[in-house]
Amino acid sequence: MACYLVCDFGGTKLSAAVIETSFPVPALTWQAHRRVFSPPGADRAVDIRTMMALGHDLLAGRRPTAVGVSFGGPVNQQTGMVYLSHHVPGWEATPLQAILAEAFSAPVRVDNDANVAALGEYHFGAGQGIDSLFYVTVSTGVGGGWILNGRPWRGHQGLAGEIGHTVADPAGPLCLCGKRGCVERLAAGPTMAQDLAARGVAAGPITGERVAELAAQGQPDAQEILQRGAWALGVGLGHAANFINPQRFVLGGGVTKSGDDWWRMVRQTAVATALPEFRFDVVPAALGDDAPLWGALALAADLDTG
Amino acid sequence: MACYLVCDFGGTKLSAAVIETSFPVPALTWQAHRRVFSPPGADRAVDIRTMMALGHDLLAGRRPTAVGVSFGGPVNQQTGMVYLSHHVPGWEATPLQAILAEAFSAPVRVDNDANVAALGEYHFGAGQGIDSLFYVTVSTGVGGGWILNGRPWRGHQGLAGEIGHTVADPAGPLCLCGKRGCVERLAAGPTMAQDLAARGVAAGPITGERVAELAAQGQPDAQEILQRGAWALGVGLGHAANFINPQRFVLGGGVTKSGDDWWRMVRQTAVATALPEFRFDVVPAALGDDAPLWGALALAADLDTG
Repeated sequence: MACYLVCDFGGTKLSAAVIETSFPVPALTWQAHRRVFSPPGADRAVDIRTMMALGHDLLAGRRPTAVGVSFGGPVNQQTGMVYLSHHVPGWEATPLQAILAEAFSAPVRVDNDANVAALGEYHFGAGQGIDSLFYVTVSTGVGGGWILNGRPWRGHQGLAGEIGHTVADPAGPLCLCGKRGCVERLAAGPTMAQDLAARGVAAGPITGERVAELAAQGQPDAQEILQRGAWALGVGLGHAANFINPQRFVLGGGVTKSGDDWWRMVRQTAVATALPEFRFDVVPAALGDDAPLWGALALAADLDTG
Repeated sequence: MACYLVCDFGGTKLSAAVIETSFPVPALTWQAHRRVFSPPGADRAVDIRTMMALGHDLLAGRRPTAVGVSFGGPVNQQTGMVYLSHHVPGWEATPLQAILAEAFSAPVRVDNDANVAALGEYHFGAGQGIDSLFYVTVSTGVGGGWILNGRPWRGHQGLAGEIGHTVADPAGPLCLCGKRGCVERLAAGPTMAQDLAARGVAAGPITGERVAELAAQGQPDAQEILQRGAWALGVGLGHAANFINPQRFVLGGGVTKSGDDWWRMVRQTAVATALPEFRFDVVPAALGDDAPLWGALALAADLDTG
């Protein structure tokens, strides 16, 4: 029976679990599972120390067969080197694989959260039995991970999946990347909230969830902004379909809980953007916040290279 | 020594060659090579009859080891069934693989021209030594074929590569597909010519070549239309980069002969559309009109499944 340690460096929270299993999957049991929130002002040193403590605590003296790691930021998957974190300072050029391999005396594999979540959904969630899929998280950012021919496609530099910075509307608002009308700028929670606040609509802090709530209550500006985000995401999915012709899109992240109107607009726009003969479905992710841990299991068990 | 018959059903022209070779490539010799133009008013029956005559003539009684076929239209690559031709009537649901297998008493493999040209450039042309590339033809239409991990990626239904119907400018002119501002609508030869004619610029029939000529002579409308097409193509390439992160783009087709300003705008826009950390190059196809025959050789020799 193999024993895997799986870790998720999630930006604002750190999760880990120990999973004892012999494949195939039915024998899989979650041995232990814990999640902690990063303290305010955490940096790389704090996050790594916290994750190590979590891991050792969960392992309780056992040595893991292998360690799988999901990281919330760009990673060189082949070397296990983190390029940087967009949320936590100090992560530039961190050899995370080497650090954890030494700490846990085990082989370690690291990949970015979108690729890992795609792998999790493919093996254990909404992508089971599907040969090609694009997993997209719509949350504080918008990013994706590909499964093609049953294996991750990471791209020449490991950067594939950047649907968030494809353009839906070149006349749209300015994105942090310098272009206008990017899918992320229009569809992510914080920028939708920012656009609603700019219209002076609601007092207090406006989050992506609040935009969806206000839209559900019939507030017209919130509805318009939310529908525009859904439209932009649909354009991105339709473009992804035309380029790659995958069988399924799996959508996760907080913004996907914005209700039926949001899903209807996403699906309708994706179909209208793809050529008429293209067939695909657009479904919600099944694993929720645990997708990175499930995917880290697939990574640790080398299921992505089979 | 294997003997391959390779065929290219090109819409307005039919080409075939017999190639005797033992791989690796240096032993490869073109035994015979012929190209004929489809007679005006040709339909499926005429094209198939003509290609059979060409093949039998080139083979001169030999039986080919295998036959590779490039077809100018959507194809189910697994069954060798042609869905339709956009240029020649009567091709709907034609079992081309079965027809040619019977005619030449040999195994036959069929794929669409963009996938076959990508395979040709990858094995014998501008994609040699490159692990992931997107081949794009910019001609009477705009379409592409992927090589990922050294093998064609055709998509779940065999329809991948439709860069021509991704949107560059949603406020742009109406495309035949029903959307506005598609890459093909803005960048293909005939529609650029149509836009120039609509401005009443030049007498006589205006072709894509003529638009490029007029632009080179400094005609401002021709320059504007050509640059707009190059911009739209660059947006499509930048989007393809963000989604898939390939190492190289290889561009073929008549419009790519439009001069340095065209290439500069394509490259500059592709780089500006992709995120800053993406690295790729954009190079001209090396095999010209023969790319489909070279690719058909790779197909016949099963190099795409290796």
